[in-house]
Amino acid sequence: MRTANRHNYRQTAKEKEKLSLLTTPISLPVCEIITIGSELLLGQIQDTNSTFLAAELARIGVDVRFRTSVGDSSEDMTMALNSALGRSDLVITTGGLGPTEDDLTREVVATVSGVPLVFKQELMDQIDAVFKRYGYRMPESNRKQAYIPEGAEAIENPVGTAPAFVNKIRGKPVICLPGVPRELKYLWANAVASWIKKRFALRENMVTYRVLKAAGIGESKVDTLIGDIIRKSQNPKIGLLASPGEIKIRITAEAKDKEDALRLITPLEQEIKSRLGNKIFGVDDETLESVVSRLLLARGLETVVLETFTCGKIAERLLESIESPVRESMIIPRYDDLARCFSITEDPPCIEEVTSVARGLGARYARGVGLVVIGFLRKQGESYYVDGRAAAAGEGLVKTYSWTMGGDPAMLRQRGTVIGLNTLRLGLISAR
Amino acid sequence: MRTANRHNYRQTAKEKEKLSLLTTPISLPVCEIITIGSELLLGQIQDTNSTFLAAELARIGVDVRFRTSVGDSSEDMTMALNSALGRSDLVITTGGLGPTEDDLTREVVATVSGVPLVFKQELMDQIDAVFKRYGYRMPESNRKQAYIPEGAEAIENPVGTAPAFVNKIRGKPVICLPGVPRELKYLWANAVASWIKKRFALRENMVTYRVLKAAGIGESKVDTLIGDIIRKSQNPKIGLLASPGEIKIRITAEAKDKEDALRLITPLEQEIKSRLGNKIFGVDDETLESVVSRLLLARGLETVVLETFTCGKIAERLLESIESPVRESMIIPRYDDLARCFSITEDPPCIEEVTSVARGLGARYARGVGLVVIGFLRKQGESYYVDGRAAAAGEGLVKTYSWTMGGDPAMLRQRGTVIGLNTLRLGLISAR
Repeated sequence: MRTANRHNYRQTAKEKEKLSLLTTPISLPVCEIITIGSELLLGQIQDTNSTFLAAELARIGVDVRFRTSVGDSSEDMTMALNSALGRSDLVITTGGLGPTEDDLTREVVATVSGVPLVFKQELMDQIDAVFKRYGYRMPESNRKQAYIPEGAEAIENPVGTAPAFVNKIRGKPVICLPGVPRELKYLWANAVASWIKKRFALRENMVTYRVLKAAGIGESKVDTLIGDIIRKSQNPKIGLLASPGEIKIRITAEAKDKEDALRLITPLEQEIKSRLGNKIFGVDDETLESVVSRLLLARGLETVVLETFTCGKIAERLLESIESPVRESMIIPRYDDLARCFSITEDPPCIEEVTSVARGLGARYARGVGLVVIGFLRKQGESYYVDGRAAAAGEGLVKTYSWTMGGDPAMLRQRGTVIGLNTLRLGLISAR
Repeated sequence: MRTANRHNYRQTAKEKEKLSLLTTPISLPVCEIITIGSELLLGQIQDTNSTFLAAELARIGVDVRFRTSVGDSSEDMTMALNSALGRSDLVITTGGLGPTEDDLTREVVATVSGVPLVFKQELMDQIDAVFKRYGYRMPESNRKQAYIPEGAEAIENPVGTAPAFVNKIRGKPVICLPGVPRELKYLWANAVASWIKKRFALRENMVTYRVLKAAGIGESKVDTLIGDIIRKSQNPKIGLLASPGEIKIRITAEAKDKEDALRLITPLEQEIKSRLGNKIFGVDDETLESVVSRLLLARGLETVVLETFTCGKIAERLLESIESPVRESMIIPRYDDLARCFSITEDPPCIEEVTSVARGLGARYARGVGLVVIGFLRKQGESYYVDGRAAAAGEGLVKTYSWTMGGDPAMLRQRGTVIGLNTLRLGLISAR
């Protein structure tokens, strides 16, 4: 039921052959990610590490075919490692490199490799230096972290105490990374990505993605407008991923280099953009909030936000970048308080009143635009609904939107947030 | 490096024997969760389904030992299913039950079982009814969803179009659930949990958890205060899970029923509570915001929140429940605006000024308490730091806190949010 961008592996053999007539044939290395830690199996934490690694590996052209999580058990880790080695060209593990007794990755990898653990003085010095930098004396237990399997290549970790390493088992690299997300990301960016690219002779951008992002349009409407292109797409392949209020259209091309890939992608991208028009708000890493911030800053404008049922998510998204165009933000969750503060007389308020509130808020600052999103969750059977009103006004700009929608509170908040940001965006581009 | 609540499987055989002298011996069924969808392998979405299932399975006494994600490929799904059947008593899959061509779970399960797919008129009628309810005509492609492996037990899905089913393969149940989180949760609560409990004759609460939650204290301080209890704990077993600003202390007991488990847990819980005092803010499902809301509502108080660098996360957490004590919330991200609006004269402001702002905000409402959290992210090399001030004041209540902390912006926001909520909580309990 999840609509998504899917590689259809069943077609690999036949289709790849056909595509090879169009583009240089590509054989992507197959990777398995193993995340280690009983907290993952108890559902205590989200496994964000493997999501991060999966996205990064896809970006550099590695085909992640399996992700596995195991607990802190030698037996289970051994089983997972062996089965990964049987079906992949590359294995990446995260976690289990800490100083405590239940951190077992080093031991398991050494055992599966059939080698002993060896002490590395240079790792010990580096761990010691991390403690010194923070003004602590290294506890004896951290000595354990200076051991790696004999023959393994150490990856120094200047941002934490867990050195990572690469060991070859049956000719296949097993890269063991720490479980702390910040350390993992640092090591990925500074050592691991380039190591993998070199080892598998990955050329830059053999697989190139372009993601078009749309708001203010439903999934079925997108399908009506571009379904024909999606269904006949092969290389580039087009997939949809919908979340409340936003749709991602992903164009994936395989070619011998980025230039060739873009030559395949660009005509499709143009066609989709022309069919969807201003529903497309951004490309690739752009977010609704980054686009709105950019549009505001480019015009020297700032914004004041007033929200009700969205609980501050609009302001939060606009505030997440360090350079933010938000001067002030308010949440007034109840109708009575809102009516008193802003002379609103109806519930749901009429769009004129909402627009006038937005204009008033914008006028608090010299180059201010007000953004107001008003609505109140009301129960209807087991579900909720909202009668929503959004207005962006100020500095010659006016854009409004009224809607009604039903669902669970979290989804309604998320959709309301997208609608609010998108209303401001549409106001800004139409005022161009 | 992740500090967490970990089962140490290596000890299973030996330790279980020892524990069996104390408590009734327990053999938990071993489960593997397989989540299906190429979007998971591309890192496009977080796998929240397996986190949900893992937590729920742990709750009813099922031992999740592996989690695997595979793409929409028959070959990879078959491999994952076979390896799961080899090492588990129960397999749960999510995803791949939709109407489109790349939804392959039905086919793969039938093939691995060695049976054909069969059409079920009652499922067809139920799918048709879902479309009718939303006023649509069922597309022909959805007919595919009325097929399940011969001999499988259907699980009707009244909240979506993907019926789920259970099939036995080599005597082991394979439960196939849809990938849409809302449908998955509905089916879990209304059919699947009870099915599993019955099938494995799980008595209520053979494994009982109690989670104590602490704020305003670091992990190393917790270790100093209760490390001796943690290290000697076996049944109950104690584990720590730290996140920015908050620490969870999990007490896990295995016993023949909940009453016996609580008899094991209670003395430890009391001891930990007495050592940590008011650092413990809640138990089990309680959150900092639910505790603060409860304390406010119980005293007939409401709150007005002013934030800077926390970007509205304090208000958001307090607003997430439908019954919220927040009357008004503001974010003013820049020092100059804040200084002008609230007559603040220093940066960082002195705690007296912050307290007076809090008192003024609280006074806007009859039984109002102001909560103010002020700080500004400043760069220091590659990192950021904040000089923070928090004050809760109004209705005879005053509590303040000043601190300095460094790190990345997201972590600083999260910790600032916890500090703000905790300051209000400490104010409310000391005003009792």
